[in-house]
Amino acid sequence: MYDRIKGFRDFYPPEMAARRETIDTVESVARRYGFREIETPALESAEMYADKSGEEILEELYVFEDRGGREVALTPELTPTVARMAVARQQALTKPVKWFSTRPFWRYEQVQQGRFREFYQTNVDIFGSAEPTADAEVLAVAADALTGLGLDSGDFEFRVSHRDILGGLLAAFEGEVDTRAAVRAVDKREKVEPDEYAALLTDAGLSAGQVDQFDELLATPEDRLDELVAFAGTDRVEAAVGNLQRVLAAATDLGVRDSCSLSLTTARGLDYYTGVVFECFDSTGEVSRSVFGGGRYDDLIEGFGGQSTPAVGVAPGYATLSLLCQRAGVWPEEAIETDYYVLQVGETRETAARIARDLRARGHVVESDVSGRSFGAQLDYADSINAETVVIVGERDLADGEVTLKQMESGDQTQVPVGSFPGDHERPTFDDFA
Amino acid sequence: MYDRIKGFRDFYPPEMAARRETIDTVESVARRYGFREIETPALESAEMYADKSGEEILEELYVFEDRGGREVALTPELTPTVARMAVARQQALTKPVKWFSTRPFWRYEQVQQGRFREFYQTNVDIFGSAEPTADAEVLAVAADALTGLGLDSGDFEFRVSHRDILGGLLAAFEGEVDTRAAVRAVDKREKVEPDEYAALLTDAGLSAGQVDQFDELLATPEDRLDELVAFAGTDRVEAAVGNLQRVLAAATDLGVRDSCSLSLTTARGLDYYTGVVFECFDSTGEVSRSVFGGGRYDDLIEGFGGQSTPAVGVAPGYATLSLLCQRAGVWPEEAIETDYYVLQVGETRETAARIARDLRARGHVVESDVSGRSFGAQLDYADSINAETVVIVGERDLADGEVTLKQMESGDQTQVPVGSFPGDHERPTFDDFA
Repeated sequence: MYDRIKGFRDFYPPEMAARRETIDTVESVARRYGFREIETPALESAEMYADKSGEEILEELYVFEDRGGREVALTPELTPTVARMAVARQQALTKPVKWFSTRPFWRYEQVQQGRFREFYQTNVDIFGSAEPTADAEVLAVAADALTGLGLDSGDFEFRVSHRDILGGLLAAFEGEVDTRAAVRAVDKREKVEPDEYAALLTDAGLSAGQVDQFDELLATPEDRLDELVAFAGTDRVEAAVGNLQRVLAAATDLGVRDSCSLSLTTARGLDYYTGVVFECFDSTGEVSRSVFGGGRYDDLIEGFGGQSTPAVGVAPGYATLSLLCQRAGVWPEEAIETDYYVLQVGETRETAARIARDLRARGHVVESDVSGRSFGAQLDYADSINAETVVIVGERDLADGEVTLKQMESGDQTQVPVGSFPGDHERPTFDDFA
Repeated sequence: MYDRIKGFRDFYPPEMAARRETIDTVESVARRYGFREIETPALESAEMYADKSGEEILEELYVFEDRGGREVALTPELTPTVARMAVARQQALTKPVKWFSTRPFWRYEQVQQGRFREFYQTNVDIFGSAEPTADAEVLAVAADALTGLGLDSGDFEFRVSHRDILGGLLAAFEGEVDTRAAVRAVDKREKVEPDEYAALLTDAGLSAGQVDQFDELLATPEDRLDELVAFAGTDRVEAAVGNLQRVLAAATDLGVRDSCSLSLTTARGLDYYTGVVFECFDSTGEVSRSVFGGGRYDDLIEGFGGQSTPAVGVAPGYATLSLLCQRAGVWPEEAIETDYYVLQVGETRETAARIARDLRARGHVVESDVSGRSFGAQLDYADSINAETVVIVGERDLADGEVTLKQMESGDQTQVPVGSFPGDHERPTFDDFA
């Protein structure tokens, strides 16, 4: 007996049915907004990740040398791949490019609740627009996906921040500050002790007094963002604040503003973000981790050798999303469904197969005996797969030109002329013939 | 600029739209037969493959040691994984178990037309039935999937064979014959020169005379299978021939017999098959390789430490399937489709967003400006995404309480009161208001 690899999961049909319904809902929202599906490789050159995020990122990835001597990585996220794809076809692609895809990613993580080494996301990205409407559309897709899953707009909140406000404030302090390290510290703020957070900022170059001042600035409420502009006194912070305000105004027009709250302490862990960033949280706090996040990354494609191409995206992940749906009581039932079981008694396979074929042609889920089972065993099986209707095709009935329709929930049954079944009925049930 | 890894593919939206339609068709047929979706890991213990197929198989796989010191492999096929999953839940699973899943697999192959290092398949398997009806149902799913794609039953043929007829015949020869090696030789028969084929059989232990005799036996037509039984004079061959005949009889009842032809020279490369095996071919021969195949593997689950569990399956692969569909002229158009583009002129974002939201709520694909573009640039973009209808929301029109509906194909347009759009129309078009 073999074990599966730690941090990897097997999804059996009942759980998969719930997952499929969830993924279908998210994808269907993305499609309706005009995002187009792409499909991408599981392996990329490891260099692509090392160049973008530093060699140390490779420690967290599944990296190996393939038989051709290439150092390759199992893809830990989609963004570098879509950036590579956008560069490869940059002449041919009509902007804005709007793409989505659902697939697994891999990181050598500490396995815990809602965190696995193989995890699934639907990535939704817009390339080629720097306009606030694009940021707001990404937020609107995320919100519509969540409400499409049955969540109420009060069940979740998007904590919205802006990387260039953070960067601009840090640049305004006296002394040398390592912005990248300081932003990472902000991203860890909720996950570590206050002392450790302060130490991380000190390591990044802030003095103890500056740490306090910075923390105070990050608590600025939305109606006093001009204080940040005044503090920094730079065009950079003024532009960043203005951009954030315009994104929130666009969110209002697109109907998603109520789900957004300003949260400058939200930073996102990845280095490549440049503008608005956001994370989705469970409003009740019961799911304590960020459910998913997204943001603007205007420099990545140029960094990959392409033309300057602004970009913004979001990536709902299904491990945490299922925790949120379960908390809110809207996770789909983990059960399989069957429209018909066509039960064979005696040598009736040909007729049973004809009936099953006719019902399948109408789009229904139809099983029939493939095991040479007895009447009782077939009925038990039909019950185990939650068959709604059982069509009993018996030798004696057939001699009289009839089959029996059995409604499983009530146990009621009735005889039907075999020649008129399924006949013109799109979805024939006991009630149509009783 | 980074390159993608050799043998791996990026699928951009137009091609992906055709692939998605194809995959949806195949999966929808499997669902209607009552196969239930599962989802499986990308990595498995390398030992699992080495144990089943010999250490040499690892040479063809992407194998590496993970950070925990496990030797892992990117899954080259689904069957060992589903066998592992069936064993892990063997007490809880109600038989027959019917599973399907679509996912990529990986092999370090020579890249050529229709063959990649990352390739996608939909695996469809039945566990827990040794009955011929199960084999026939798997053939019927494959045939329905192909006709569902628009192929005519004359476009393809299933070449059906039986591993235990091959094995039983080989065992009936005088001398020591390495059955596994001989079956692999049969699998290579069409791909190598006659001399090489003969040499492979000689290496497997057959004399030159036996090679000729074996080849003659493999040419036995369907109505003279009793000659094989007579040659071998063993219960084994008698049982195997009887089983093959019962599978073909079941295929008749299930309506798939016309797509099947007997072909004892069809062997399938994998070692674990035990009964009926089959391969799907392009009837015209224009696609010269096997499109996909399947068969019965009754011993695998027991070999994985489970209870004896007969199994049969098929796995349509999309690289070769697309070649067949293209040859037959039924490959879906590689194009994106859009129901509506909502065009903004001036400060009309709020109304445009409301209209887009209403249309999306009716299930349509709707794009709107996210780039702050001019009228003309938006119209060009709407054209590039094949928008059927453009809803023009202009400041001046809005002042008169109107929007303009433009049918893109004809260029015709008409004014519509904004309050009655989309109104009660499920899919409002120019014709509804002209």
